[in-house]
Amino acid sequence: MPETNRVWRLRKRPVGVIGDDVLSLEKEAIPQPGAGEILVRLNYLSLDPTNRIWMSDMDQYLPPVALGAPMRGVICATVVQSRAAGFAPGDVVSGLGMWADYQLAAPGALARMSPVEGASLAEAFGLFAVVGPTAYFGLLDVGKPKAGETVAVSAAAGAVGSLVGQIARIKGCRAVGLTGSDAKCRWLTEELGFDAAINYKREDLSAALQRACPKGIDVYFDNVGGAILDACLQHMNLNGRIPTCGLISQYNATSAPAGPKGYGIILMKRLTVQGFIVLDYAPRFREAIGALGQWMRQGQLQFRVDVHEGLENAVTALRLLFTGENRGKLMIHVA
Amino acid sequence: MPETNRVWRLRKRPVGVIGDDVLSLEKEAIPQPGAGEILVRLNYLSLDPTNRIWMSDMDQYLPPVALGAPMRGVICATVVQSRAAGFAPGDVVSGLGMWADYQLAAPGALARMSPVEGASLAEAFGLFAVVGPTAYFGLLDVGKPKAGETVAVSAAAGAVGSLVGQIARIKGCRAVGLTGSDAKCRWLTEELGFDAAINYKREDLSAALQRACPKGIDVYFDNVGGAILDACLQHMNLNGRIPTCGLISQYNATSAPAGPKGYGIILMKRLTVQGFIVLDYAPRFREAIGALGQWMRQGQLQFRVDVHEGLENAVTALRLLFTGENRGKLMIHVA
Repeated sequence: MPETNRVWRLRKRPVGVIGDDVLSLEKEAIPQPGAGEILVRLNYLSLDPTNRIWMSDMDQYLPPVALGAPMRGVICATVVQSRAAGFAPGDVVSGLGMWADYQLAAPGALARMSPVEGASLAEAFGLFAVVGPTAYFGLLDVGKPKAGETVAVSAAAGAVGSLVGQIARIKGCRAVGLTGSDAKCRWLTEELGFDAAINYKREDLSAALQRACPKGIDVYFDNVGGAILDACLQHMNLNGRIPTCGLISQYNATSAPAGPKGYGIILMKRLTVQGFIVLDYAPRFREAIGALGQWMRQGQLQFRVDVHEGLENAVTALRLLFTGENRGKLMIHVA
Repeated sequence: MPETNRVWRLRKRPVGVIGDDVLSLEKEAIPQPGAGEILVRLNYLSLDPTNRIWMSDMDQYLPPVALGAPMRGVICATVVQSRAAGFAPGDVVSGLGMWADYQLAAPGALARMSPVEGASLAEAFGLFAVVGPTAYFGLLDVGKPKAGETVAVSAAAGAVGSLVGQIARIKGCRAVGLTGSDAKCRWLTEELGFDAAINYKREDLSAALQRACPKGIDVYFDNVGGAILDACLQHMNLNGRIPTCGLISQYNATSAPAGPKGYGIILMKRLTVQGFIVLDYAPRFREAIGALGQWMRQGQLQFRVDVHEGLENAVTALRLLFTGENRGKLMIHVA
């Protein structure tokens, strides 16, 4: 074991795009596990839009990361030392941890991962620990799609969005993806089986939605908010559902973002807009993992990981989520 | 029977407040019922915020009233001539009709009203035909309040709002009403049994909500949208519900109204915002009427009607809904 640990600590609240001075990578001593604790070594660090929320002090669903504290993240790690019952060195675990090579965890914070047949550790971590349950519960529990309905999803080439469209197809729906490049559009339709894809940066969004969703939108899975939500609202069908998973267009905003222009459509079309956070579904993760694993083994679900090397590159890589340059589940490989 | 009929016809789409030139009252011949039709004479005309929507050509839940066509309204009327099975002269009926002394109706558009013990015809019409089911299904089906929760309602001294607060109390909730005058606040708390009332025109809304809803808001029954929605969003509890019944603050808007500023709170607090229209619940009206009637007979529910005389005064009276000058169910008595 090396003598020093590396820990990303939050130094200031970001304003706009995450600047280089928001976090600092510190060399620190490796902590010693107390009774009931485990010491783990980071294998993969998941990078997610919600990291930007945790850095800020906006009203949010977990306490913001305190200034000076280690940055919070979803991790995949290996147990190095265990003083907790049920964990032994070599166990692979995942859950909420921090951006650090070595870290302590109390029982309950991290859960043991089982190997997944036919999937790499990165794939198993990305799919089962984070984005798979998000897509699964957000679409099926909140969105309640029925066969024959049209499901539109924004950030469709992202980790959650790409799963949402594929699950919609599995459930007999028309899947329409909104994304920011022609290459991503081709990936969605030619490789993932989406029925249609829209490059919102190039096309007139309303005309494109009219063409791609000729029967209107029954479920709009919202990852972004903002102008894309405005456009989708105009095409919602009666009794449509808008599972609200993320509002990434707003996370870097430096002033209070405007609400959706078509809010009145919620009334006129009797829509249901429902926010959800995957952590609320933790007791049911097993159900999602079972279904996702089966679809994957049957070749019905493709899952792409976008792995960058080195804990020191975490901030640079995280910014890719906000510029549309990433495709698939973004993560850092550490050890 | 007189020789002429009076019919309010829509002449132009309103811009802002409903002007005197938006509708015109025409003298016309009394129509003759064809086979399967009934001729009815108007007793009461319900005046509702949604009338303003029907006059406009905004995206809405029924076709807008066509220019030149009779204005649509919820009516209580008496059958004068019947060429339809199941209706006889003297029957009292209610449903969707028009702003006219005499009018034809096809079977299905109007339903026979039964006399209600202890209630005047105006009370029975106002409570059972329109606003009672709106408050009942909007609060209970959409809002799903649980005993001990806090229910806040805007336009609380209005016909729907005053019922929502009372039903919330019946269900064991804390009822908080938002309204625009101290006199209305006193009526809500001293006569209708609301736990608290806020005069949003005089008080700082956020501070007042903090005081009136010390445990936060679980259900915000939205009749108004706009700045009051903005304020209530800031006080919503985790997994709160926002049944969206009306957005009256926006109906007179002359430019596209801004969406709610705190839209992101829907995500962070996992809120459910759901629009509803009472017409969707028509098959279940009997359930609402049964419950409302029982609560009324038991003295648990007070219902106030605000009756103005004369079909010729319909437009003047309708404007009261938008200036906050009315209390209780607004209607016109005709014959």
